[in-house]
Amino acid sequence: MSSANQVRSGDLVLLYLTARKRWLVRAIEGEKLHTHRGIVDFNDVIGANYGSTVSTTLSEKLWIMMPSIRDLLMKSERPTQVVYPKDLGAIAAFSGLGPGKRVVEAGAGSGVLTAFMANLVRPNGRIYSFEIRPEFFSVAERNLKKMDLLEYVTLKNVDLQEGLDVTEADIAVLDLGDPWNYVQVMRGCLVAGGMLVSICPTMNQVEKLVEKLEEELFIDIESMEIMLRGLAARTGMTRPNMRMVGHTAYLTFARKTIDPNKG
Amino acid sequence: MSSANQVRSGDLVLLYLTARKRWLVRAIEGEKLHTHRGIVDFNDVIGANYGSTVSTTLSEKLWIMMPSIRDLLMKSERPTQVVYPKDLGAIAAFSGLGPGKRVVEAGAGSGVLTAFMANLVRPNGRIYSFEIRPEFFSVAERNLKKMDLLEYVTLKNVDLQEGLDVTEADIAVLDLGDPWNYVQVMRGCLVAGGMLVSICPTMNQVEKLVEKLEEELFIDIESMEIMLRGLAARTGMTRPNMRMVGHTAYLTFARKTIDPNKG
Amino acid sequence: MSSANQVRSGDLVLLYLTARKRWLVRAIEGEKLHTHRGIVDFNDVIGANYGSTVSTTLSEKLWIMMPSIRDLLMKSERPTQVVYPKDLGAIAAFSGLGPGKRVVEAGAGSGVLTAFMANLVRPNGRIYSFEIRPEFFSVAERNLKKMDLLEYVTLKNVDLQEGLDVTEADIAVLDLGDPWNYVQVMRGCLVAGGMLVSICPTMNQVEKLVEKLEEELFIDIESMEIMLRGLAARTGMTRPNMRMVGHTAYLTFARKTIDPNKG
Amino acid sequence: MSSANQVRSGDLVLLYLTARKRWLVRAIEGEKLHTHRGIVDFNDVIGANYGSTVSTTLSEKLWIMMPSIRDLLMKSERPTQVVYPKDLGAIAAFSGLGPGKRVVEAGAGSGVLTAFMANLVRPNGRIYSFEIRPEFFSVAERNLKKMDLLEYVTLKNVDLQEGLDVTEADIAVLDLGDPWNYVQVMRGCLVAGGMLVSICPTMNQVEKLVEKLEEELFIDIESMEIMLRGLAARTGMTRPNMRMVGHTAYLTFARKTIDPNKG
Repeated sequence: MSSANQVRSGDLVLLYLTARKRWLVRAIEGEKLHTHRGIVDFNDVIGANYGSTVSTTLSEKLWIMMPSIRDLLMKSERPTQVVYPKDLGAIAAFSGLGPGKRVVEAGAGSGVLTAFMANLVRPNGRIYSFEIRPEFFSVAERNLKKMDLLEYVTLKNVDLQEGLDVTEADIAVLDLGDPWNYVQVMRGCLVAGGMLVSICPTMNQVEKLVEKLEEELFIDIESMEIMLRGLAARTGMTRPNMRMVGHTAYLTFARKTIDPNKG
Repeated sequence: MSSANQVRSGDLVLLYLTARKRWLVRAIEGEKLHTHRGIVDFNDVIGANYGSTVSTTLSEKLWIMMPSIRDLLMKSERPTQVVYPKDLGAIAAFSGLGPGKRVVEAGAGSGVLTAFMANLVRPNGRIYSFEIRPEFFSVAERNLKKMDLLEYVTLKNVDLQEGLDVTEADIAVLDLGDPWNYVQVMRGCLVAGGMLVSICPTMNQVEKLVEKLEEELFIDIESMEIMLRGLAARTGMTRPNMRMVGHTAYLTFARKTIDPNKG
Repeated sequence: MSSANQVRSGDLVLLYLTARKRWLVRAIEGEKLHTHRGIVDFNDVIGANYGSTVSTTLSEKLWIMMPSIRDLLMKSERPTQVVYPKDLGAIAAFSGLGPGKRVVEAGAGSGVLTAFMANLVRPNGRIYSFEIRPEFFSVAERNLKKMDLLEYVTLKNVDLQEGLDVTEADIAVLDLGDPWNYVQVMRGCLVAGGMLVSICPTMNQVEKLVEKLEEELFIDIESMEIMLRGLAARTGMTRPNMRMVGHTAYLTFARKTIDPNKG
Repeated sequence: MSSANQVRSGDLVLLYLTARKRWLVRAIEGEKLHTHRGIVDFNDVIGANYGSTVSTTLSEKLWIMMPSIRDLLMKSERPTQVVYPKDLGAIAAFSGLGPGKRVVEAGAGSGVLTAFMANLVRPNGRIYSFEIRPEFFSVAERNLKKMDLLEYVTLKNVDLQEGLDVTEADIAVLDLGDPWNYVQVMRGCLVAGGMLVSICPTMNQVEKLVEKLEEELFIDIESMEIMLRGLAARTGMTRPNMRMVGHTAYLTFARKTIDPNKG
């Protein structure tokens, strides 16, 4: 097993007990994690192989896992409503997000979608993200820093209506309550043929947004919702999960065209 | 407008008329596209700006768009059942797929999932994809080449049961009818803590797979289905689409742990 | 086997070949049914037991079944959009529909919902159904007569806005495009505590209706959509159906209260 | 307002505060209801009109409503898993349930489905319901008595495998964990052409049941699931409910044919 697979002091690790009981922690030499299942001494974690277990003082075994981007997102600070993984995935698949893309986002909120996108455009792409509310700007910054993704993001605490100094973006993301008010601003940031993405919880928002998108000469406008239902697979008694999230948000995708009059 | 935004001879372009009528073509100097809405002369396309229009001989205006990865996937050769965008997205969000990841896949099928993943692991990651059936191997190779993604993929026409020479993969993908028969092989390819992903249409497959995954000490096993429903947003008459796909496949995710006895 | 289980001349019978190939016909002595699978002589059907088969001239065996109310509804004349069985069921379960209930309905449309309700309120209940468009009024009348349900229905070809001469109805059903315009009329028809039901395809209609219901002092207002997905159960390969209907209509239920000022 | 619309002593009434806060109580002269919103004196309720309000000692106004069958079902004793309204509705719509039908059911469980069906077959139909577990038999009996529906039900505390003395039933309902073991018994109870209905939570149960139904010459076999999602309609911010039930049970419907060998 290569040393790359061993926990080093300072690593973010996921300690996994069950689907619902899992801790995302930084393994610092000499420090400890206190849980209701006992205490974990990080000295026992550092040097251990990922995929192995560590015992708590109550003899509970926790699996030491390398956190995935989803673990990081789910365990981030989130004072705002955040975009769910099912919706993040659809944004990745339908917007053309990927390495090297330039993305402009408003607003950053808690930075969860920002982080997801930053992780996918690395190392040559970049996210330009705007958040007017200072308290969320700080949360987003902290979250991105904790996930080591801040270097791929230009995060600004400004009012969008004053205009953005971003041009030739491949993707523009609107994650705020009145996206129709920012379609023109985003149009200015996007490359011709670029993709606009919007996340809206209500049907009325989608309706107003789509009207504005048509007015601003966007084409290939598509709105959708993504539903995720777990399957509880157990020998001889497999069935869908009894509980599911009923609704998060509608996603809208549209492509910018060039207006001969507006350039 | 920068020249990067102008069509060059040899570019793959998307000519867009409506949501249902769109053509993915290579713009070759001197060649033409024949459609039921008239003929497009590629000489009119080359040099045009992306986001602008070209007229057919029947005066129909088509939008010239830069194809997204989704356009490429949807227009690829597909003699096999392929993974739908809604499921591709969930795979991206739940598996930790992203730049730099090493992925092993069996089987390649038409190469649609392969291409989606190759696009996301660029430029430093790599997909090792295996396909035993020679006819699909060729399709996958052609599709990847057409999308300029073959350089990120090691595509092999071999029998998986003979073992794979891949190790330390971050993600292992099983997209075949009897995934339980390949869990051990994939276990050998994966780094400790690595993620296994499987795509199965029936609940019986999921049930057998999950049994095997538990036996092979995978943890954090999660199965799900993703449903996508379009929203038809029109002023004063917004409603979900009347038509939707009822089912494609269940996705299963699980993480490899280290068995002290098996190493 | 009692004679009640034998087909008599004049009976409506369902001839069943497969889930998709089924005929609802009246078995008339001396007449024949022509199908692409051969000809059925009704003389072979009359006197046969329900649940048995009859052979066509091409030796195809068709099952002779007593039609259920659903068969009758699905095979009725339907020049208009009709209410789907999944929605009919929810109306039955959520509105309190049942034997003895007095129901007022606007508009009758093709009479499919009318017939479903008439079948459930028998023998002592009654449906008062209104349809302003003469062409649909005739269709509804024909459909109800064919199903032997017209005797439980008072069907009128009038303009609702002129007021209805129905009072003390237990349930009021609005199945038309602008239900908010008829809430007051329906309020007048309903018993205090009675249930209003509305069927609307768009969210905008539901929004306007609910506003009006609140204004008119209805309580316990509940809107919902019902999704039905088939399960293809086959040994070792059970999965949801690939095709499903994405959307039909939203159902809204609400209860009338007494306004001390309006009585 | 007719006296039929006034509460009489002994009536079951629904006292409604909000969608989540509602009480189903019998209004008995001289008695009181204690709630966290104050005390209701039934003397204030008796003689009041349905649809009007009564005040608690804390000046909270509760609406006095006539309970619908759904209110009765939702507020019944339920020590067992019960059938949800969305599924009850589909059973009504897809099985042909209605006035005059003879129905055989196994097992009765808490009697919720029994009561729903009894209400719909009144006054000339009948439910024959069997429950082997004495404790549930008693619950079902109490629930049916409370809803004034016991007179339409023959409820027996017997072992089904000993055979049932019911013949010529129009509908047979299997609501137990191993329905495949009772298909033959139910076949014997059903009229030729009669409808079998089964409620099963897992896919494996449906698979085994359908195998058995095919073996026993049932046709038109159809399995489905019903999903209900609420719509939160509010001016300018209408969206689906964030919470929904992910899964309850699969419904299976099938029709009995006559086996020339078995009669």
